[in-house]
Amino acid sequence: MTTVLAPDTTIFEQRESEVRSYSRAWPAVFTRARGSWIQDEAGRDYLDFFAGAGALNYGHNNPVLKRALLEYLDSDGITHGLDMNTVAKRRFLETFQRNILAPRGLDYKVQFPGPTGTNAVEAALKLARKVTGRSSIVNFTGAFHGMTLGSLSVTGNSMKRAGAGIPLVHSTPMPFDNYFDGEMPDFHWFERVLDDTGSGLNRPAAVIVETVQGEGGVNVARPEWLRALADLCSSRGILLIVDDVQMGCGRTGPFFSFEVAGITPDIVTLSKSIGGYGLPMALTLMRPELDVWAPGEHNGTFRGNNPAFVTATAALEQYWSDGMLARSVRTKGDQVHAALADLAGRFDGLSARGRGLVQGLAFTRPEQAAAVCRTAFDAGLLAETAGPTDEVVKLLPPLTISTDELALGLNILTEAVASVCREQEQRA
Amino acid sequence: MTTVLAPDTTIFEQRESEVRSYSRAWPAVFTRARGSWIQDEAGRDYLDFFAGAGALNYGHNNPVLKRALLEYLDSDGITHGLDMNTVAKRRFLETFQRNILAPRGLDYKVQFPGPTGTNAVEAALKLARKVTGRSSIVNFTGAFHGMTLGSLSVTGNSMKRAGAGIPLVHSTPMPFDNYFDGEMPDFHWFERVLDDTGSGLNRPAAVIVETVQGEGGVNVARPEWLRALADLCSSRGILLIVDDVQMGCGRTGPFFSFEVAGITPDIVTLSKSIGGYGLPMALTLMRPELDVWAPGEHNGTFRGNNPAFVTATAALEQYWSDGMLARSVRTKGDQVHAALADLAGRFDGLSARGRGLVQGLAFTRPEQAAAVCRTAFDAGLLAETAGPTDEVVKLLPPLTISTDELALGLNILTEAVASVCREQEQRA
Amino acid sequence: MTTVLAPDTTIFEQRESEVRSYSRAWPAVFTRARGSWIQDEAGRDYLDFFAGAGALNYGHNNPVLKRALLEYLDSDGITHGLDMNTVAKRRFLETFQRNILAPRGLDYKVQFPGPTGTNAVEAALKLARKVTGRSSIVNFTGAFHGMTLGSLSVTGNSMKRAGAGIPLVHSTPMPFDNYFDGEMPDFHWFERVLDDTGSGLNRPAAVIVETVQGEGGVNVARPEWLRALADLCSSRGILLIVDDVQMGCGRTGPFFSFEVAGITPDIVTLSKSIGGYGLPMALTLMRPELDVWAPGEHNGTFRGNNPAFVTATAALEQYWSDGMLARSVRTKGDQVHAALADLAGRFDGLSARGRGLVQGLAFTRPEQAAAVCRTAFDAGLLAETAGPTDEVVKLLPPLTISTDELALGLNILTEAVASVCREQEQRA
Amino acid sequence: MTTVLAPDTTIFEQRESEVRSYSRAWPAVFTRARGSWIQDEAGRDYLDFFAGAGALNYGHNNPVLKRALLEYLDSDGITHGLDMNTVAKRRFLETFQRNILAPRGLDYKVQFPGPTGTNAVEAALKLARKVTGRSSIVNFTGAFHGMTLGSLSVTGNSMKRAGAGIPLVHSTPMPFDNYFDGEMPDFHWFERVLDDTGSGLNRPAAVIVETVQGEGGVNVARPEWLRALADLCSSRGILLIVDDVQMGCGRTGPFFSFEVAGITPDIVTLSKSIGGYGLPMALTLMRPELDVWAPGEHNGTFRGNNPAFVTATAALEQYWSDGMLARSVRTKGDQVHAALADLAGRFDGLSARGRGLVQGLAFTRPEQAAAVCRTAFDAGLLAETAGPTDEVVKLLPPLTISTDELALGLNILTEAVASVCREQEQRA
Repeated sequence: MTTVLAPDTTIFEQRESEVRSYSRAWPAVFTRARGSWIQDEAGRDYLDFFAGAGALNYGHNNPVLKRALLEYLDSDGITHGLDMNTVAKRRFLETFQRNILAPRGLDYKVQFPGPTGTNAVEAALKLARKVTGRSSIVNFTGAFHGMTLGSLSVTGNSMKRAGAGIPLVHSTPMPFDNYFDGEMPDFHWFERVLDDTGSGLNRPAAVIVETVQGEGGVNVARPEWLRALADLCSSRGILLIVDDVQMGCGRTGPFFSFEVAGITPDIVTLSKSIGGYGLPMALTLMRPELDVWAPGEHNGTFRGNNPAFVTATAALEQYWSDGMLARSVRTKGDQVHAALADLAGRFDGLSARGRGLVQGLAFTRPEQAAAVCRTAFDAGLLAETAGPTDEVVKLLPPLTISTDELALGLNILTEAVASVCREQEQRA
Repeated sequence: MTTVLAPDTTIFEQRESEVRSYSRAWPAVFTRARGSWIQDEAGRDYLDFFAGAGALNYGHNNPVLKRALLEYLDSDGITHGLDMNTVAKRRFLETFQRNILAPRGLDYKVQFPGPTGTNAVEAALKLARKVTGRSSIVNFTGAFHGMTLGSLSVTGNSMKRAGAGIPLVHSTPMPFDNYFDGEMPDFHWFERVLDDTGSGLNRPAAVIVETVQGEGGVNVARPEWLRALADLCSSRGILLIVDDVQMGCGRTGPFFSFEVAGITPDIVTLSKSIGGYGLPMALTLMRPELDVWAPGEHNGTFRGNNPAFVTATAALEQYWSDGMLARSVRTKGDQVHAALADLAGRFDGLSARGRGLVQGLAFTRPEQAAAVCRTAFDAGLLAETAGPTDEVVKLLPPLTISTDELALGLNILTEAVASVCREQEQRA
Repeated sequence: MTTVLAPDTTIFEQRESEVRSYSRAWPAVFTRARGSWIQDEAGRDYLDFFAGAGALNYGHNNPVLKRALLEYLDSDGITHGLDMNTVAKRRFLETFQRNILAPRGLDYKVQFPGPTGTNAVEAALKLARKVTGRSSIVNFTGAFHGMTLGSLSVTGNSMKRAGAGIPLVHSTPMPFDNYFDGEMPDFHWFERVLDDTGSGLNRPAAVIVETVQGEGGVNVARPEWLRALADLCSSRGILLIVDDVQMGCGRTGPFFSFEVAGITPDIVTLSKSIGGYGLPMALTLMRPELDVWAPGEHNGTFRGNNPAFVTATAALEQYWSDGMLARSVRTKGDQVHAALADLAGRFDGLSARGRGLVQGLAFTRPEQAAAVCRTAFDAGLLAETAGPTDEVVKLLPPLTISTDELALGLNILTEAVASVCREQEQRA
Repeated sequence: MTTVLAPDTTIFEQRESEVRSYSRAWPAVFTRARGSWIQDEAGRDYLDFFAGAGALNYGHNNPVLKRALLEYLDSDGITHGLDMNTVAKRRFLETFQRNILAPRGLDYKVQFPGPTGTNAVEAALKLARKVTGRSSIVNFTGAFHGMTLGSLSVTGNSMKRAGAGIPLVHSTPMPFDNYFDGEMPDFHWFERVLDDTGSGLNRPAAVIVETVQGEGGVNVARPEWLRALADLCSSRGILLIVDDVQMGCGRTGPFFSFEVAGITPDIVTLSKSIGGYGLPMALTLMRPELDVWAPGEHNGTFRGNNPAFVTATAALEQYWSDGMLARSVRTKGDQVHAALADLAGRFDGLSARGRGLVQGLAFTRPEQAAAVCRTAFDAGLLAETAGPTDEVVKLLPPLTISTDELALGLNILTEAVASVCREQEQRA
């Protein structure tokens, strides 16, 4: 890299709240992007292994979606539509039905709960409570579901929880898969405490779960664990909510991340990549018999983000008319996993985990994970840490990334790891 | 009107949740829009006096903003940017600083809390609680602040509150301006209960208020009431949050609706029309000393909706470089108000109220308000009801509407009122 | 008074928690008591105008009750009986039925909820919530209902509320009678906010009220206010709980303090003087159709304090077989009120209020109220302050006090007031 | 047994709430009692192996305490003393200091929080929250702490929890000792979830624990488990509250049940047998540095139940001046345990457990436990079931019971078990 002048970030420092975070990790000012690449205003290109935290599964400014979007906007299609019927919404619903629900034998009603993941989760929790008449929700260690009060109450991160400023209640954490490193039978505690009428656990309305916890540190639930969870919920009359905001839309391979387990959740949330182009959009799916909403009982101004319906439809047509994307995600996932496993084999204190194109490299020493991301950034790769102590380098490349780009990024990562871990060894 | 075939709404009825509402009031399928007009797929044009519930202050697909948006998208500018620094965000912040904050002597830090109004309110409430260490919030009768759990707890509507499925706590309603028809001095109850250490009121972290309650039925707070509220908060160490999601961005005339009162709230929320083009975007503004967020303590995938930054910037440049828009809103507001006052004079049980281009016609008999909106829809005008019993016809035309369009819409409304009220009289 | 050695309070200071309070106001060590008199170990006698905060309506160690108690204990009658059937409980229930319920046409089921007032209130709140399926309770400014979490949430005093250590929720205070000095029609706010479906008030399960707020500063609700409250509750399907822990058992004249208003609450709590002799005992009374408790759903070790049943029965037989006590309370109440009114006439900033034998002298300057109690104590009279700023000298003499004793106590009080107020005037 | 007429329980059925429970299990009307015996009005004697649910550790109407009580009452000693200093309270505090605290090297401040166990627990929870500024409490599966809202929230029984009528929050249950039958290391889950900043567990103010869960089914925590719990709390800055309401006062042998583990809790609650004679009394003990109460911040009318101070003092003098009682409890406990272990050896599906004179016989088939108690009652023995499905016959004889009485009761129990289990076998 040639030396560049420090970017002008004055206005951000002066005017933007201290809450900003990614801009601290990546001290550049970005200007344009395409596919797996993003460019800063100094003209420097970065390979993006973060992909909008999973919101850009089809890459930045995907040309197929872009064309559809520009045409739509150019023709003065409806931009803002509340929850009015629009042609764009109809096409989205029909395509979602045809390409996603029908082939999978899924019979979900679709709610547009507001265009963000946390809106979708809030709607899911409200519905589960309304349907069951119960207030309590079971979540899992390491969970991340969003920042509004309902979603935050089922989120694990203690720093984020503290931001609520009030005690977060109505939720009880249970151990996620492998929380005890296999020492204990799955759901031993959960099942025991559920069935013991003297346990003091409030009977839950629902269980909310991610099949792979992204923010939690790329913790992967085994299919058999998910099946056992679904059975447990079903046998006890507890609703199962799969939060597929980050892991849905093909991130782990299939469209829905729970397909690997062969289960059918009662409620599913989707957001991030459902809009396809990085435009805000979210869905709450529910079994038809759970659709007890009164008209207008949950609303929101931006439920009908029609440009997002257009790009969402284009994405479903382009990528989900057949099984090619899902297969390629598995192949590329294997490529990433192999590279990470290799690193884990070469250096002490590292381990690899993931499913499809969400892969993590866990470090015993969290400061190494941070150093790897810094080093990678300097070498032109965007990657971020996750996990309770930010001890995991989390890789979320676009699903549409080429194998060459993937190889390039993994090379940068490998060198970064090598440099950080060697340096550490030399110091030691 | 020529008879048209009923629109095909099969997929909405089959797949979309029962929660949908506007699509029931306006049983058309919309396809394109421009300025104050929206068209359904049968080719019928409707004059839009709802304007995305206030999200389309500059009209549908405003050509100036559209040009900026198409150029940006075409050039592959960043679409999705988390909270990374981008050129589009910088331009927005600079323009917001130059055209909005600086001329008004306001020194606010800007948070991008997620792209919807309820995200902005949730961030405001969290911050107020964190800063003060108190949990309780005072809201007002008739308030509407959003559907996620925190915002819902300070919202008045009992049907929407019931959707939470759990008791909504930590909030206490106080009477909004004129709740007692002037029978009681302003803040008599609030001040008394605050200062009485035996009252049982939990000392609030903040008061959250709309200067004009839109969803609540176009209830207008007088400037002196707002000033007294600001004084009350300031003297008791309670933060004042103005929720300007619907009334900001010029809806009542000035950019911020609280300017009319000459007050400076501690925290301000903006959304709906801040993006200008109907794209999801929201801001939480706070006095700098209140910016105690830790990095990442509140986050969200769509905080950096860069296309919205672009249209927002274009809107600020186009409409807020001078005072023309604000003045024209006042003029047009007078035009609307005069028409409504005239109706109120002609028919029993009607009254007019509003400020700028949010105006309401209240009916003693709520069924009349519904009938007026239905009749207006049949005649090609979109308008909706508001208020606890939906007893108010609420008018929110685009601020950029022409006076001719305004006159046309008011004619349709006038005829609708006349027909409904005459019919009623004949029946009686 | 002759000078006495300071009492030995070492063990209290060393071992007893800082939470102790009356022992600070009255720095003596008491040893025996009879009727209206209590003696400290230095042999000094005090006339007791506090009467165990209303727990000693029949005086200390009332000889009639004492005889019954000693006989019972001597004969090895059941002392501790959980909620078993006992002869003592049967006699109590029969006497309560015969002397209290039947003559008043009241058909209440009787719960023994644990032997303290706060237990009775907790049971009442639980039952009201269970019956209605609602969570929220309306309480009144100035209310005091107890220190356990449920009762504390409906108590007004902010210092006591802070002791909870968590936000107290599920309650909303409404203005008690005369909170606005007659400026506002009764229940204007409460009725308005109840009937406005957009008000944001959670529909309450119950209203809990004291007819005279003792701890709140001897605030007396007018009969017409209580009737209007009962009507309001009844017409809206809200349960009315009268907390008669302090004001019941004849304190205001009739056995139940609400008799003056001719209303029949849905639920009534009794404690303090119901046991008659100062022994812990409490009742929760409920209309039969509200008795939806499952067996054992509310329990407690000391529900069956049989010695208290014995003294309670003796008290009901001795004092409530006819109307003599009620009449004499009114007569003595008038005597006290006249004396206080006279003081209020003589000195600026004083006002008198009360009903029956709960009477208060309110001071504009709270420090005067404290000084009056201190001065009275030095002169051999026990009295305490009440009210949010402890600005009211509250008089609660035994109902069985003689008119001579009453006159003596009022003389001491008069001199104390005169000395405090004169002193204040001289300083000014 | 000779046939007796059914007792007259009309008034209880007519007037007493459906909440009554023991009176259903033991359908007699009791009239007098002495030592380990209680008599009904038909003259029938019952051996009492329930002892007021642990409130009668020194037997019914213990003659030594009775003498002290009668003398005190006869001499017109203070009966009701609020929290005033009295000679009786001084003597109690001095004796408690000399006989209980000093010999054990304990330096606790003493709060009189109201005369019932649940009052003591509420005070403990409030204090823990106030001291730490945290809201959450960790309790254990099977816990029982009382029926007022704060205590109920940390109680396990789901039927009793449902009585609250509102969601019980701020508590999280953890597995009690042996909840997993030794399959899992102690505190594996609790420690993990505490130390994982992403677990979603609210950092607790305190842990509340019974050393032996009586209501929970005679679940005995091992000393090493209690020590590990104390270490865990201490190392994480979490307060440890031992609720010794039922297990204190010698029930398990030593005065405090936690002495067996050699730990010093931060806060201790005592009630039930602390008054000695079955009179309502309770204590909350706290380390001096935790005594942050403001004067009057927690109060209550019956904190100063002076007759109970008198009997409490007599009990401490009579039974806790030396180690005899503690030793005899262990000896008798062994006698009971041997009998139960013998039964468990003889019949399938039975197991024995307990410590000191709280012993349980657990049945695989809960209906057998109920049948045993019924059969025992018919044969003149009072015993009750406990546990989440009432599957455990719980024995709580007076500590002062003679070995002959103990043998007699165990004989009745043995025959009842034999008859129930044989009958069951014959049916099978």
